[in-house]
Amino acid sequence: MGRAKHLTVGSKAPPMEKGKLRLYSMRFCPYAQRIHLILDTKKIPYDVVFINLSRKPEWLQEKSPLGKVPCLEFDNGDTLYESLIIAEYLDEAHPEHRLYPDDPLAKAKDKLLIERFNEVITSMYKIYLAKTVDRDLFNEVLEGLEIFDKELAKRGTPFFGGNQPGILDLMIWPWCERADVIKILKGEQFIIPRDRFLRLLEWKLAMKDDFGVKGSYLDLETHAKYIRSHQAGSPQYDLV
Amino acid sequence: MGRAKHLTVGSKAPPMEKGKLRLYSMRFCPYAQRIHLILDTKKIPYDVVFINLSRKPEWLQEKSPLGKVPCLEFDNGDTLYESLIIAEYLDEAHPEHRLYPDDPLAKAKDKLLIERFNEVITSMYKIYLAKTVDRDLFNEVLEGLEIFDKELAKRGTPFFGGNQPGILDLMIWPWCERADVIKILKGEQFIIPRDRFLRLLEWKLAMKDDFGVKGSYLDLETHAKYIRSHQAGSPQYDLV
Repeated sequence: MGRAKHLTVGSKAPPMEKGKLRLYSMRFCPYAQRIHLILDTKKIPYDVVFINLSRKPEWLQEKSPLGKVPCLEFDNGDTLYESLIIAEYLDEAHPEHRLYPDDPLAKAKDKLLIERFNEVITSMYKIYLAKTVDRDLFNEVLEGLEIFDKELAKRGTPFFGGNQPGILDLMIWPWCERADVIKILKGEQFIIPRDRFLRLLEWKLAMKDDFGVKGSYLDLETHAKYIRSHQAGSPQYDLV
Repeated sequence: MGRAKHLTVGSKAPPMEKGKLRLYSMRFCPYAQRIHLILDTKKIPYDVVFINLSRKPEWLQEKSPLGKVPCLEFDNGDTLYESLIIAEYLDEAHPEHRLYPDDPLAKAKDKLLIERFNEVITSMYKIYLAKTVDRDLFNEVLEGLEIFDKELAKRGTPFFGGNQPGILDLMIWPWCERADVIKILKGEQFIIPRDRFLRLLEWKLAMKDDFGVKGSYLDLETHAKYIRSHQAGSPQYDLV
């Protein structure tokens, strides 16, 4: 994924390399990680420009009108943003190693599950932000994750995508990689109970071993360190 | 679109007709209208079951886990929800009269514009809900619409989709059909200035004449009447 520093106010946009995609990213942004996961899984060559999201370079808005990452840039100056729009674009434009199901209905159902995962994301963020620890919020996270544990059981395959990670695996992964940070930040009573999520835990182990996942993987301690710095009001983007 | 009453608590789910799609809808819901527009444009046979969203039938959650419309049901009991997910499904499963661009990048850009239209939607709702009229909010609506007026100019075609409505036309239409309700509800100072939106106004006239749009079209007075009843706390779903 590279270890370049996050660019900030006053920086210049690095020149584009002919014929190569560029991803504007932030090292700890789970939405940007979605696109790293797709590019890495599909082995599409790209370079990365990391963005300091607290003090954004002036030129960012030209490329990403809402000032957000991920943002994908083409060598003709075209750009795309919004993680799920970039994801589907990449899968259509680089059809080798398809990530979305071919069948329209199966594809729509994967997209619905990606949508439903937003409930887990929302509850997780609320926990991170909460000053006092809220057990109800944690239960919301667990109930949300249960939908996915049951779905894995229904599909009967190691990954949601079958024998290798598909779009649903990759789009929910960034938050699953971080899920146990809650325990580090908020204490032992927030351990995700193993026996309730046996399939999801097995899936996590398999995901961590996947080629496409390894490229952007960070361990829990590093995630926790970043989230603490973010909570303290001075996010350490260049931690890695 | 049919004039059946909106089903409510205590109702029974009508039996499905073999080989026909069903749309769960609400007569004044702009998100549900998106799907009527697609089904009507593509001339896909479907039946409609209208839902009273204030007092939902008990059986709705089985079909639409978040209790929302639009929801599409298949004769095998499968369902889909979320307007944009249904939209893309229908376009893929019924490829005659394609609505999304074939080119992945053009398709992604249309989707980004559909996303950006959410800003217009949000500002419009805030105006409807505001007790006192807020000129800044109205300016936000106008600035949002300007992006689309300029885009039409850039494309140089009568519709965003070219010579006939495409996905972008249909997905933003429901709110454009209702845009002038602001004037009826909030007064003459909220007239959308003609000279600033010449292309969009021409587009609106062309859209109103389109076969696929006529099936769900309602006039401003009817929209205003429904919105007033909604604001008063007792939405008149069966107004039409």
